[in-house]
Amino acid sequence: MQDYHSGGFTLPGEAGYEQLTLEMARKWGADVIRDSDGTKLSSEIVDAGYRIYSTICIIRQHNAFAEAHPDSQQQVFLTSEFVMAQSDILEIEPLNGYFREQFELNTSPEAMEYWQVWDRTAGQLVPADAWEYAQGKVRIRNCVPYHDYSVSFLAWRIWEEINMYNHTTNHWTSEHLRQLDPRHPEAWAYLQQWLRTWCEENPQTNVIRLTSLFYNFVWIFGEDMRRTTRFVDWASYDFTVSPAALKAFEAEYGYALTAEDFIHQGKLQATHRPPTLAKRDYMDFIQRFVADRAKVLVDIIHEYGKQAYVFYDDSWVGMEPYGRYFSSIGFDGLIKCVFSGFECRLCAGVDVPVHELRFHPYLFPVGLGGLPTFSEGGHPEEDAMAYWMHVRRALARECVDRIGLGGYLHLTIGYPAFNDAIENMAVTFRRIRALHEAGKPAALNIRVGVLHTWGRLRSWTLSGHFHETNEHTLIHINEALSGLPVEVRFLSFEDVQAGALSEVDVLINAGREGDAWSGGSVWQTPELVAEISRFVYEGGCLIGVGEPSATDGLPTRLALARVLGVDLDRGEYACHAPWSFETAEHLPFVLPEAMPKTAGIRIMGPDTQVLSAQDGTPVMTMHAWGKGCAAYLGGFEYSLQSARMLLCLLCHMTQTDPVAAGFCEDPLVETAYYPASHMLLVMNNHDTEVEATVAYPGGKLQVKLGAQATCFCPVE
Amino acid sequence: MQDYHSGGFTLPGEAGYEQLTLEMARKWGADVIRDSDGTKLSSEIVDAGYRIYSTICIIRQHNAFAEAHPDSQQQVFLTSEFVMAQSDILEIEPLNGYFREQFELNTSPEAMEYWQVWDRTAGQLVPADAWEYAQGKVRIRNCVPYHDYSVSFLAWRIWEEINMYNHTTNHWTSEHLRQLDPRHPEAWAYLQQWLRTWCEENPQTNVIRLTSLFYNFVWIFGEDMRRTTRFVDWASYDFTVSPAALKAFEAEYGYALTAEDFIHQGKLQATHRPPTLAKRDYMDFIQRFVADRAKVLVDIIHEYGKQAYVFYDDSWVGMEPYGRYFSSIGFDGLIKCVFSGFECRLCAGVDVPVHELRFHPYLFPVGLGGLPTFSEGGHPEEDAMAYWMHVRRALARECVDRIGLGGYLHLTIGYPAFNDAIENMAVTFRRIRALHEAGKPAALNIRVGVLHTWGRLRSWTLSGHFHETNEHTLIHINEALSGLPVEVRFLSFEDVQAGALSEVDVLINAGREGDAWSGGSVWQTPELVAEISRFVYEGGCLIGVGEPSATDGLPTRLALARVLGVDLDRGEYACHAPWSFETAEHLPFVLPEAMPKTAGIRIMGPDTQVLSAQDGTPVMTMHAWGKGCAAYLGGFEYSLQSARMLLCLLCHMTQTDPVAAGFCEDPLVETAYYPASHMLLVMNNHDTEVEATVAYPGGKLQVKLGAQATCFCPVE
Repeated sequence: MQDYHSGGFTLPGEAGYEQLTLEMARKWGADVIRDSDGTKLSSEIVDAGYRIYSTICIIRQHNAFAEAHPDSQQQVFLTSEFVMAQSDILEIEPLNGYFREQFELNTSPEAMEYWQVWDRTAGQLVPADAWEYAQGKVRIRNCVPYHDYSVSFLAWRIWEEINMYNHTTNHWTSEHLRQLDPRHPEAWAYLQQWLRTWCEENPQTNVIRLTSLFYNFVWIFGEDMRRTTRFVDWASYDFTVSPAALKAFEAEYGYALTAEDFIHQGKLQATHRPPTLAKRDYMDFIQRFVADRAKVLVDIIHEYGKQAYVFYDDSWVGMEPYGRYFSSIGFDGLIKCVFSGFECRLCAGVDVPVHELRFHPYLFPVGLGGLPTFSEGGHPEEDAMAYWMHVRRALARECVDRIGLGGYLHLTIGYPAFNDAIENMAVTFRRIRALHEAGKPAALNIRVGVLHTWGRLRSWTLSGHFHETNEHTLIHINEALSGLPVEVRFLSFEDVQAGALSEVDVLINAGREGDAWSGGSVWQTPELVAEISRFVYEGGCLIGVGEPSATDGLPTRLALARVLGVDLDRGEYACHAPWSFETAEHLPFVLPEAMPKTAGIRIMGPDTQVLSAQDGTPVMTMHAWGKGCAAYLGGFEYSLQSARMLLCLLCHMTQTDPVAAGFCEDPLVETAYYPASHMLLVMNNHDTEVEATVAYPGGKLQVKLGAQATCFCPVE
Repeated sequence: MQDYHSGGFTLPGEAGYEQLTLEMARKWGADVIRDSDGTKLSSEIVDAGYRIYSTICIIRQHNAFAEAHPDSQQQVFLTSEFVMAQSDILEIEPLNGYFREQFELNTSPEAMEYWQVWDRTAGQLVPADAWEYAQGKVRIRNCVPYHDYSVSFLAWRIWEEINMYNHTTNHWTSEHLRQLDPRHPEAWAYLQQWLRTWCEENPQTNVIRLTSLFYNFVWIFGEDMRRTTRFVDWASYDFTVSPAALKAFEAEYGYALTAEDFIHQGKLQATHRPPTLAKRDYMDFIQRFVADRAKVLVDIIHEYGKQAYVFYDDSWVGMEPYGRYFSSIGFDGLIKCVFSGFECRLCAGVDVPVHELRFHPYLFPVGLGGLPTFSEGGHPEEDAMAYWMHVRRALARECVDRIGLGGYLHLTIGYPAFNDAIENMAVTFRRIRALHEAGKPAALNIRVGVLHTWGRLRSWTLSGHFHETNEHTLIHINEALSGLPVEVRFLSFEDVQAGALSEVDVLINAGREGDAWSGGSVWQTPELVAEISRFVYEGGCLIGVGEPSATDGLPTRLALARVLGVDLDRGEYACHAPWSFETAEHLPFVLPEAMPKTAGIRIMGPDTQVLSAQDGTPVMTMHAWGKGCAAYLGGFEYSLQSARMLLCLLCHMTQTDPVAAGFCEDPLVETAYYPASHMLLVMNNHDTEVEATVAYPGGKLQVKLGAQATCFCPVE
């Protein structure tokens, strides 16, 4: 019998709590002890025979250098507020409204080259000789009265954003940390040497856990307390910019980027929006830069006999694990913090030797949402179970190598229920891992392709955690898919035009008109529309959710309206009477009680079968198209019921029997079947004990399940 | 004392019910007796000493001529359904899905010139040599597989639409009436002669009541019972088309219209959508044609010593009463059927000698909505009172000359409550008319400009009756305005750019993105935006409702976002945190309980005062802009409460005291003050007796009002 009580667990050690550290390491079966951001392990812990992870945020711990070389700091393009001209002269203070502790104007000659002044009412660039900068203000001449003007400018970022977050949210009071741009030649030389010195001074460290790399996700603070965060995007590239980067880009690509490529009328370019072609080029440019420089650092780490793991959060821009250059860096492991199943699949699917999850909650007094965890009123064991149940179903589909926690270990004192829960999770994790090692779980013959602008680059995630992107339907779908026994891949529109539909059975497009997930104006490409029409007509399946393939300028608002059998009325159907319809009397599967509605959906004709409608608006339809079929859903909100509905829909459309992968009628009981191990994994998502019948290829299994329990049931 | 018991009332006489006709004429104080569509008055009625109206639908009563000259019938451009090519050959039956009793293909050589075949997937016209028509089908070669194709074609309209409506809805069984196109030379000669003959044969007729003129509003029927009406638009011009019209247009304008100018990707061009420039030209062209030909007919009528009134409904396309050429026709009167206050104001404001309202309900067994009126289950007196209370408040602001009824008089037998109600209404109408004749009611110093694409042409109405357009916010606002003591005018965007804002104090823009009422892409005109910004900045007021000034391509979704203080997020604000806000503690006036919400509205900054919000979305805001201010409303649904709110909003924004025009705190008690007559008109909209205090410039008046009563209160 295998020992499931140790291994694959990373414990956050804490100096001053050496005994607790070693005790919890035994309880949870840790094989690794790590430090946490801002802490240092004591020798008593380091010498206890565990492997040691040490955390480094490579660009952040160098205030002395930054002060000596202020031009080595990172930058960003910002826009001033829009200001209306009352006469032909106007003055604008560019930094008005920004958090002055985060930003400083970059008025160096090489930066001023990139400053722009815009007549935003006319949409026209103001000639450079019509404005000048002096003493914090831009003075514009020859203004058109009652037009709005703005200044786009480069600013230094003088406070590293994660440190700034901890100060402003967790009341840290230490020195503001600055961050270096590795593109700055002296900074880059300094950073390499600093890393070598660090490796030399820390021989006990086995694994350097890079708290990502160089460029933080975008996080722009405002000075007004009614909008402290002006803009936050976990996947945008605004914080990578500098005159040096722009010049290098121009030299390589043969065209120059301008401030407007970033400012984009003040909207910036959020990951949720389709990128301009220039942004695509720029992203590739930055990804190569990040990978090249990261490889140099990883090589240094290897030189010292250590391993390099990367924590996929914070300063990770340009090193996307599904990007083209990630594997070239040579990381030994990837660590991903997880709240949700999709994050587990994101981590599990990356081409890297070791995949590790950092579970939630953090060992912090309060959680990310501001509610107590390890403090009065907190129930960390309940939080942990809630996250675990999201992650568990994904782990059952595709496992990772390690799990772990983060934060301050001493906070677990007085929370024995939490400590027991983690112990149980660790054991269960190891059992699931062992099943995967013996052979893959049975899956249905359904290959799902999730179609959006970013394709593989943004596999599983959109940007950020579930709660940060949950107004976007697709993250709900990804979360549902993360625990279903189907193959999932992420396709871009270019992939589809290059023939990728031959590799999928069901194509999903889910988003809102104009966003990166629905696709926006790419749907004005006739070849794309015809290719998907062909795919379905020849027998493929299409699921559209929300405002799939929506764009303007076409005869229908949804480019795929004819295939889907529904269209979206944004007013163009004025005076066109809708088709009357009746909802289907017998549903092929159970629908969740509340199906989200997209206002304005109307069926294209009587061939569209309406499975469900709300206030006269179809919220779920089916439409045959040649040998294939298309389903439309007004929306999708993740729940176990909706995840089950999605599974049943996939099976219904592809005429697949779900039993092949193990199936329980109760949507709150999920299962995975491991034929090589002759094992059914049955997961109870009820808060109560239930009896369940699980059908699998070998027959049916009756099983009694404790509340929230994970059962390992041997079968023939 | 004036006699309010007779005059200004048109009674529908009925042959076979001569005694009833004369009795009701006395009871209701009729001075005119008219026939109704499809009926003929007997000599007993005609000779009873009343003035006589006779109804003529000039283009409809000529089946023999139409059969002898089938090419004199009216036409329309239609599009076939979209059909997907599975190979390089495709056949399409153009008329598939259309009601075959309404349409017939026009395959004459001059019509075939205008047929088009479209690759709708690629958005490309198929060359004429790649398709041919034969035996009801179009055969297309060289198709791109999986592209959708459609055929645009000319069809004869072989059944006059109002007659068709009465057959299909009211179970008429008589011969299908056809309609002639007055552009056809022989038809035109025939119609003039026919009218002369009619005048000669009907010497007793004083007034010819033209059931409009030549071209019906667009009403396209389908063959499938699940969508019998495919398209209906009370103000579109599709039914005016013919090869002859297109040739004449081309000769005059120097460019040719094509089928696509009408078909517009299958969407047609509904009045609710901004027109293309070609459509604008075409409308003007048709308006001039209609006015020219109508003048010839009116001159003939005058020649015979008769008057020509026009009934503004049915075949009225091209003769809009607020169009440029209407007054040139020389009509003696305009008759408008009214359900609502805005229709009363529409009629009252037209430049024509006599304004007459046809009240509802019709003397028909069932009403337009299909519910019983003069049949079992009907309560025509309640219906009449409901319509009356909508119309009454508008009559109090601007009166008309006459009222009347339509339909079959014998149906009133057994409905004495209805007959009494009409008698009372007639008396009240005459009293209100007398007040107007003595001097205008007091109005506030507030000039409201309603801004939309059509401007003056579509004053008060959008297209059709309230219940036909009530998904459009603006009709609710027009209905509210119709009874408020303010000056109202309707401005186009061209008017604004030509300086019309100097004539208004408050500008209202209310609509949905892309519709004719909001304005659509016209908002990409910087001069327009700057002009409104100037207007408000210098002290004007702006009210935006729904999605005012919404368009894409600008820094903000609402072009006037900076002035309004709110913007509409269609996804572009992804990652941009919203401003937090608190709703105002003290409201300057009472808001209706449920304020409609536009999803995605966010304030532009802390200067925007949120008066009301729903689920975190502002539904009413105020924003100071220079010396002026702007209000935003998430929507507007007409009720007396919301009408009162609008009045209070107008007064609040312009700092006007509503008492100047008479004011009662109770929103269900409306008032009008006639200084010349020293009279307060107090209208109780409660279903119960109430006591009300009305403030007016001379003081305050306490008055007890019966349920729904209209009180005439003499004051100092």
